[in-house]
Amino acid sequence: MALHGGIDLGGTKIQAAVVDDTGAVQGQSRRPTPTDGGPEGVAAEMVVALDEAAKAAGTEATALDGVGVGSPGAVENELGTVSEVVNIPGWEGAFQLRDALADQLGTHVALGNDVQVATDAEVALGAGRQFASLLGVFWGTGVGGGVVLDGRAWLGRSSAGEVGHMVVKQGGRRCGCGRKGCMEAYAGRGSMEREARRRHHEEGEHTELFKIMEKRGRERLSSGIWSRAVDQGDALAESLLAEAVAALGAGIASAINLLDVEAVVIGGGMGLRLGDPYVRRIRGAMMPHLFKDSDPPAVVLAELGDLGGAIGASLLVSAPQPA
Amino acid sequence: MALHGGIDLGGTKIQAAVVDDTGAVQGQSRRPTPTDGGPEGVAAEMVVALDEAAKAAGTEATALDGVGVGSPGAVENELGTVSEVVNIPGWEGAFQLRDALADQLGTHVALGNDVQVATDAEVALGAGRQFASLLGVFWGTGVGGGVVLDGRAWLGRSSAGEVGHMVVKQGGRRCGCGRKGCMEAYAGRGSMEREARRRHHEEGEHTELFKIMEKRGRERLSSGIWSRAVDQGDALAESLLAEAVAALGAGIASAINLLDVEAVVIGGGMGLRLGDPYVRRIRGAMMPHLFKDSDPPAVVLAELGDLGGAIGASLLVSAPQPA
Repeated sequence: MALHGGIDLGGTKIQAAVVDDTGAVQGQSRRPTPTDGGPEGVAAEMVVALDEAAKAAGTEATALDGVGVGSPGAVENELGTVSEVVNIPGWEGAFQLRDALADQLGTHVALGNDVQVATDAEVALGAGRQFASLLGVFWGTGVGGGVVLDGRAWLGRSSAGEVGHMVVKQGGRRCGCGRKGCMEAYAGRGSMEREARRRHHEEGEHTELFKIMEKRGRERLSSGIWSRAVDQGDALAESLLAEAVAALGAGIASAINLLDVEAVVIGGGMGLRLGDPYVRRIRGAMMPHLFKDSDPPAVVLAELGDLGGAIGASLLVSAPQPA
Repeated sequence: MALHGGIDLGGTKIQAAVVDDTGAVQGQSRRPTPTDGGPEGVAAEMVVALDEAAKAAGTEATALDGVGVGSPGAVENELGTVSEVVNIPGWEGAFQLRDALADQLGTHVALGNDVQVATDAEVALGAGRQFASLLGVFWGTGVGGGVVLDGRAWLGRSSAGEVGHMVVKQGGRRCGCGRKGCMEAYAGRGSMEREARRRHHEEGEHTELFKIMEKRGRERLSSGIWSRAVDQGDALAESLLAEAVAALGAGIASAINLLDVEAVVIGGGMGLRLGDPYVRRIRGAMMPHLFKDSDPPAVVLAELGDLGGAIGASLLVSAPQPA
């Protein structure tokens, strides 16, 4: 059985996996994304992660039938370059990631967009299996999206799927992208943290969020911290999550009104951590805005979890036959 | 050369056309939509309109190579029925429109959705000719939409394209559909008229809109009345049109951020009447919300004018070769 590698490159972590022809993960490794050393340093760490994953699968990188990479930023698979990775310091211009990895790994490498490969993984092997058309919504630091129509990714002129930047409130909250009223301005974990800091530090609202963060030795409000705070009944956390859910509901309903796809698959760090109860809340927030509310789409949680991105990346170099 | 019939069924008018293989209109007729007599009465008037169009084209209905119908409401072409036509009194249940027309016209009849056939017409013969993917936005009493991807209409599970019911302002103005914050709640001529009446009658704002309406012996604020009022510098009309343009810009940008299509074609009664200056305003209102603003889609006015719906309907029974 052929084995393929997949690497999910994120702003905070590199997730590597070795996947067999059925889509089953045979080995995996996770490493922090280096914050110095620029793209060369990141590429070197991706090689280490993939080597570890191969070792865990009882093989080595050179024996793999290709390695796929899901990357943020502007990905040009035909050129082999990735540029404008805003979440990784020092990665502004175009970097020849494909050749850098292929040289060190000793196998061929293909590049894809991180959100799109995660969507493809859910379509091929996860929650999207039984649907011919769907919208993937990856709710994390930002809110990414993948559009699948007639079983194939719809990329538009190259950058379709920016569901997080659909406008849910004209003149509304400033988004990390600089625009106003985007869904991500309410639902992105980055925006939620900015708003939590503002309301806590400037308006004096009580919250346990930053105490939990300090106790855990973190510098950012991770999905786990948000989850813990609402479990404790933290009013500010609940208020911001309610706004996030409302924005997700409105934006997803807009997408459904436009595309009428069969299903919505909710993934991403926040989606996976908060899980089914929040999938139900998002579905509830979607319904009042749904034009054809007598026949709503399925709204389901992503099934492949944190490994979805890496599994999806491996699909760039394979065509799995689910077991 | 084969001739085909097309009928655009609207809430206020029935537009019939006889179209040749190049898409050129050889004869046309327009009649008011009967407001009594229910669907049978409407069907009878559609027959009269088509007969007149055929006569104008120097032929008769039985000699046509089929007649296509673009209809509002829930269209089931396979069944031959149209139901839930909210704009036509007495047309609640399913009516067998196809057979009723075919019997009286003596040729075969095909049914389609009014907005979708108007989009198809612009794609085949109008402003969308050079684009493989586009969004049609029909700005009239409501705001309808048509999605074309890879040169084909994308219908989703049956009801894609409801661009007018994309949410542009959570918790915003009530829409005619009962929901809140839809694009149509700000941009639909029906909603604009409700808001104009409220601001004029309840809040005492001055406007020439209703004086122009009375002078013209109308009961509704037609597109021509809105156009006349802004030409006269009417502040209330300009204020409501500015809100409409802002909502169109936000909603269209959301659709582009999701789908990244090549072009947006603006049609409909308001779009056609207000023309290129408003297409430019809508484009301007779209830009601040566009995620990939370095490479915006083309935003163009529909080219087929008031006859676009009837021409598009004729395409249901033909495959035109543009001259």
